[in-house]
Order: sequence, then C-alpha cells, then structure tokens
Amino acid sequence: MKKHEIYLNCVMYFNAAHRLHNPAFSKQENLRIYGPCNNEYGHGHNYKIEVIVKGSVDPDTGMVINLVELKDIVHKLIIKECDHKHLNFDVPWLKGINPTAENLAIVFWQRLEKKIKGVKLYKLRLLETDTNIVEYMGE
Amino acid sequence: MKKHEIYLNCVMYFNAAHRLHNPAFSKQENLRIYGPCNNEYGHGHNYKIEVIVKGSVDPDTGMVINLVELKDIVHKLIIKECDHKHLNFDVPWLKGINPTAENLAIVFWQRLEKKIKGVKLYKLRLLETDTNIVEYMGE
Amino acid sequence: MKKHEIYLNCVMYFNAAHRLHNPAFSKQENLRIYGPCNNEYGHGHNYKIEVIVKGSVDPDTGMVINLVELKDIVHKLIIKECDHKHLNFDVPWLKGINPTAENLAIVFWQRLEKKIKGVKLYKLRLLETDTNIVEYMGE
Amino acid sequence: MKKHEIYLNCVMYFNAAHRLHNPAFSKQENLRIYGPCNNEYGHGHNYKIEVIVKGSVDPDTGMVINLVELKDIVHKLIIKECDHKHLNFDVPWLKGINPTAENLAIVFWQRLEKKIKGVKLYKLRLLETDTNIVEYMGE
Amino acid sequence: MKKHEIYLNCVMYFNAAHRLHNPAFSKQENLRIYGPCNNEYGHGHNYKIEVIVKGSVDPDTGMVINLVELKDIVHKLIIKECDHKHLNFDVPWLKGINPTAENLAIVFWQRLEKKIKGVKLYKLRLLETDTNIVEYMGE
Amino acid sequence: MKKHEIYLNCVMYFNAAHRLHNPAFSKQENLRIYGPCNNEYGHGHNYKIEVIVKGSVDPDTGMVINLVELKDIVHKLIIKECDHKHLNFDVPWLKGINPTAENLAIVFWQRLEKKIKGVKLYKLRLLETDTNIVEYMGE
Repeated sequence: MKKHEIYLNCVMYFNAAHRLHNPAFSKQENLRIYGPCNNEYGHGHNYKIEVIVKGSVDPDTGMVINLVELKDIVHKLIIKECDHKHLNFDVPWLKGINPTAENLAIVFWQRLEKKIKGVKLYKLRLLETDTNIVEYMGE
Repeated sequence: MKKHEIYLNCVMYFNAAHRLHNPAFSKQENLRIYGPCNNEYGHGHNYKIEVIVKGSVDPDTGMVINLVELKDIVHKLIIKECDHKHLNFDVPWLKGINPTAENLAIVFWQRLEKKIKGVKLYKLRLLETDTNIVEYMGE
Repeated sequence: MKKHEIYLNCVMYFNAAHRLHNPAFSKQENLRIYGPCNNEYGHGHNYKIEVIVKGSVDPDTGMVINLVELKDIVHKLIIKECDHKHLNFDVPWLKGINPTAENLAIVFWQRLEKKIKGVKLYKLRLLETDTNIVEYMGE
Repeated sequence: MKKHEIYLNCVMYFNAAHRLHNPAFSKQENLRIYGPCNNEYGHGHNYKIEVIVKGSVDPDTGMVINLVELKDIVHKLIIKECDHKHLNFDVPWLKGINPTAENLAIVFWQRLEKKIKGVKLYKLRLLETDTNIVEYMGE
Repeated sequence: MKKHEIYLNCVMYFNAAHRLHNPAFSKQENLRIYGPCNNEYGHGHNYKIEVIVKGSVDPDTGMVINLVELKDIVHKLIIKECDHKHLNFDVPWLKGINPTAENLAIVFWQRLEKKIKGVKLYKLRLLETDTNIVEYMGE
Repeated sequence: MKKHEIYLNCVMYFNAAHRLHNPAFSKQENLRIYGPCNNEYGHGHNYKIEVIVKGSVDPDTGMVINLVELKDIVHKLIIKECDHKHLNFDVPWLKGINPTAENLAIVFWQRLEKKIKGVKLYKLRLLETDTNIVEYMGE
C-alpha cells in the first residue's frame, strides 16, 4: 500500500529583544553593517517560527506526527527558551552568536534536528517581521 | 522560443465540521491520540485550501491556465461538496476516511488530479487554522 | 491627578461546530432562512473573540487590568467551554439557544459581565470568519 | 453645504524592546505582576500604531488631511524615536515611564495632540501583538 | 422582553483603478497635493469595504438582518459597479467626483443608506490599503 | 567550515492599475478570455512582491546579503517604476507586454537577475490579491 508523504507545518510565536553586533568589528563597521539594528540596548520583534517536517502518513492515525507532540518539542527547545528574553543575554545556547535571522534559523534547526524523531525536519522558516523572512533547509 | 514555467496558486475557503476518530481504536485510544479533536459531535474550522499548479505560460494569453477555470474546478470538486458540511457525515467520497488534515489533503489531491488538464497539479496546501498546515505533493 | 481611561482588547480563539436551526420553524422555513448554515450535522468555524474592557490606568502598575487575569477569565468562561465542541450539543449553557453569531455574542457577554471586576466590559466582538463579524455592547 | 466628518486612520509600525518594571515594587512584586515581561534585559515587539483623526472633508481636495503630512508627523514624533530602540533606555521622553502598552498609548497621544492641527486627534490604538491591544481616546 | 442591539459587519472587496485629480487645480497644484496619486493614467487598489449596520436581534431568527441579504445589497450597489473598473471613468454615479477614500466612503454611504431597510446604517469603513483607512458615520 | 545556505525573502508592495488585453485578439476574444480584467480603462491592485534569494551565510556578518541593499535593488528596479502607475501605459520596459501576473513575474525576474550579485535569485512570488498568486523560478 502506498505511503503518502506529507509536509506538516508547526507555526509558533515568541517575543524577544536582540542586537546585531560583531565584537570583532569596529564601532563604525558595526554601525555601517547593521544600521539601527546595532542599537546598544537592542530592539525587538514578534518572531514567528514555522517548523516544517516531512513524513509518511500513518494509515491508522491519519497523521504524520501528532502536532501536539511536535508543538511540545518546539515549545521546549525554542519558545520557552527565547520568549520574553533578550537573545544576546538570556539564552545560554545563543551565547557568542550574533542573532541575525539567518544565524537564529541555523541554531534553531540544529537544536530541533536532534530531537525530532520519526519524521524528517524539512524546513525552518523564521519571520522577524512580515517583510523580513529567512528559510533554512539544513544545506 | 523559451517557454516559461509558472506556478499558479488558487486559494479558496470552506467552513466545515469534522471529528477525528478511528473506529478500530478503543474509546481510550481515540481520546489519547486525538484529544479534544475526538469530541463526539465534532468541532469545526474555516479551512483554507491552496491548489498550486505548474505549467508553461501561453505566449498568446500570458496565462498558464485561466484562473477562473481553475477556480471552477476546485469549487465544483471540493468547495461545493465540503462547505457548510460535516466532513464525517455529509460528503459521500469522504465516507470511511478519518478527516485529519493529512487525509483530506490526499483525497482532495486525488479528486483534483483527474480533472485538471493542461497544467500539472504541483502542490496542495490545506490550512485548518493559521498554525495547523499540511502540504501534499503527490509523493 | 488625572486618571486615564484605556480600552484593553483581549483577543482569543476557539474552533467549534454549529448549526443554525429554530425548531419552531418548519423544515422549509429553516432552509430558506439559514440556507447551508441549516445543514443537519452542522458545519464549523475558527471563531475569534475580542473582549474589550474599559478602565482607569493604575498609576502604580501602568495597567488597566492584568491581561493575564483577563485571559484566564475569558478562557475559563468561554474558550475552555466552546473550543473543539459542537455548540448545539456540547455546551450546557447554550442549550436551547440558536447559535447565530448574534446570539453567541449576547450570551458570551452575559457570562463575562458577571465575572469581570474592576473594569467595565465595554464591547464584545465575535468573528465567525474574517467577513462575518458582530459586535455587542450590552445595549 | 454640508461638511462631512471623516475618521482617517494612519497605520505605522516600529520594532522595539521594553521591560515592564516599577522600581517602587520589590523584585518579587515586579515578577508577580509582570511575569516574563519583567525579564531584566527586556524582550521586544513589532509594535503597530494606529492614529485616528476626525475632521471635515475639504470639498476642494476631497481629503480630511493629507495622509502624507499626517504620516510625517507620526514618523517624526513616534516612529523615528522608538523604532529599533529599547524603550526603557533610548527614548528621552519615556524616561521614568514604565512602558506598558497603556502608558505608551497615553504618552504617544500627548506628544501627537500638540502637533496635529486642523483635525481632531480622535483615537490612538497600539498593538503589542495581534492579541494585546489598547486604545486611548484622551479621556 | 429586552431587545438586544447588535452591530453586524459585512466585509467585501473590489479591485479598481483611480486617479486623484481636481480639474479646478493647476497641473502643479494637483501634483503637489496628490503626489504620485495624480498619475495621469491612474493606479489601483484592492479595496476592502466594511458596512456596519446596527439593529435589534430578532428573537425568532437570532439575526439582526440576514447577512446574505445585506451582502446582496452591497454587491448590487457597490461591488458590481466598482469591481474591475476605473473609478474616474467607468462608474456613472462617480462622474465628477474626485475618488479620494473620503469621497468614496461618503458616496457609498449615500447609495447604501437609501436601500438598507430594517436596520440602521451605522458606519462605513473603506480601506485602500492596510495602512490607509477611512470611516464615515453619516455625520 | 560548513557554509550554511539560507533563503532570504524580501517582501515589498506597490499599487498599480492594469488591463489584460491582447491586440492580436478580437474584442470578443479579449472579453471571453480576460472577462472583467479586460475593462478598457483598467482596474487595479495592491501588488505584493516577494523576492527570494539563496546564498551562503557570511560567518562574519551572519547575513546572506544585507536586506537593506536587496530592498534598494528591488525598490529601484521594480517598486519605484511600478508604484502608483498604470502598467499598460507608464512603464517603458513593460511596453507591449500584456500585464498578467505571469508576465509581470517573468519580466520582474529578468530585470532583477542582472543586478543581484553575490546571491542567487531563487524565486519570485507575485500576489495580485491574497487569492491570486504566481511564482516564477527562472525555469
């Protein structure tokens, strides 16, 4: 019997502060590269994260994976850690990482990849705003 | 002359009730697996369906397929049948199917695939809510 | 010192099935008045409820009312009772009420009004879909 | 000739960090009242501000006020000052103010009211997120 | 028995072109006042119109007015006339009117007011874009 | 050291009028094919354009490409040229092109492809409305 492959998208939110800054750059370079995103005390966003997994539909349950379980994993590994936090100071596993959308997407992927079982982590989509969006596919 | 390949997305809506339930499972199993989605009389959603087709742009019309025709097909095969219905009781071709988002996406694909001509059915995206989304690509 | 009056909007969601039907009407009348909304087994929506309260800003906390408390009240009185339910069958305090958006808004208001303390319940906004919206102000 | 009264809504955005904290409260009280919003380094939001003015339509221009002018005022007084900033540290005229949505709405109103000419400032709506919204009408 | 007053919001859409221009102004004045909106051949929008009526809930039907009837009126008087049209050339009852959002809202109100029976036309909200919004209440 | 590949999505907007019409077709054919979109003076949309580029994350900046630079390119090549314009008359490089969403996406791609350096133009997504969407990937 054919196994159907489905992409399931788990969408969650967190509100956080961040500052784009590379200590290896001079003050002028940081300002030139990051502009207002380099503001010393940071600024913030309502982040939206979409975790897209791919897997076969279980013919008994009619599901790829229980969305409740997937939400629990994303909540535990990402949301609980980052929500209402300053990403440059409050998250141990982000220490030393410049929290651009690109870098966050990669680190989030690496955390999730180890813990998501039974389905393939296919794509991670991170929206800082509705007009600033990155996607990472593990490449 | 080069033929350009375009992906055209036809977005439509329907409002329906459904209940997640597998009669082969015990009452306890159904409740454990589906949680509140197993509620006996069902619950409901404003479903959003996105039918994405791929095809060459006709150099005369500047279109891949007339979106009006595509909407007519999706309306006739899916929307008219499911809108303002209880998916567990009212739709003959869903009888015996547990209406998870995954299963609905697969059945909708199978109905559409037979009737869409001249372009390739590329992806079917089904949103139960803005945070519960599945995609099927015929795999 | 001037007390500033603020309107605070608490926005929440629930997914439910319902059927519009008045047993006092004939089958034909029900169908004529409610059209597809009269479908016997019901259909469903992703309902959005907005509870707007009005009150003075507490100069110490800078808040009209703690939004967390307000959300708890709305969750306990409305969301937990209606989410993933069939409004015609599963909610004791909706028994005998034809669940039009209008009637739901009035009953929700009446439940909330008794329990919201320290601020005035100002407006209740209920969205069945993005294009079918009612508001009730206790008039 | 009748002058028609129109409400014009100018919608703008800014991304900022903030921390809810009252230095007059103990550490425990701050945590109890503000919960995760009390996080020391702050968190952040994509704020949306709606400035609603009321005025007569000029029969010559067909406008209440030129929306471009209104946007310039809101940009100069609010957006430029708050965008990509930490509201507890970076904005001189917010010094000493606990940046709850309520307090921000009141202070924004007071700044705008002095500079908006020819129309009446009618309502200020501030959205921290799509589910946390306040309105102030100068009362 | 108490009659409950409900506000019902009927939301519809139309796509149209328009040009802001007053023939009584010089070319320079038109350009200064309307900027790019004065472009000779026009530009366009996906307009959203919200017609809010107020009325007592009929205890038999549980409705203020049948939303289907209200949609028919708005469709017949506004949408069918303006959708896929150039508002400066194609709509007889807009001839000679400079199609600013303000003027459109007033004229739409006047057309609707005559035909809406049994409920009060309470507010008309017109959105050119998500950030350019006017409201008219018949004042 | 591994270079991570990221997809960055730059989202922008423009408001324009257009008319679907092929002068090689008869009046009847144009009307049959394009329906109301063939209206002589045109109609209009709030277009949304998404330019998705793919590239390696620079380990120093944490960015694929500076989004500000990418926005400048899209603004200069597309938005400034098309915003508040009639696409059939006002844009020199669209002369003779029937402005269907498909054709616009292809021409926009061709303009952008020449000027985007250091990253790969991966996908161009154009939305006439929220329910009429095309994507082009250079195929």
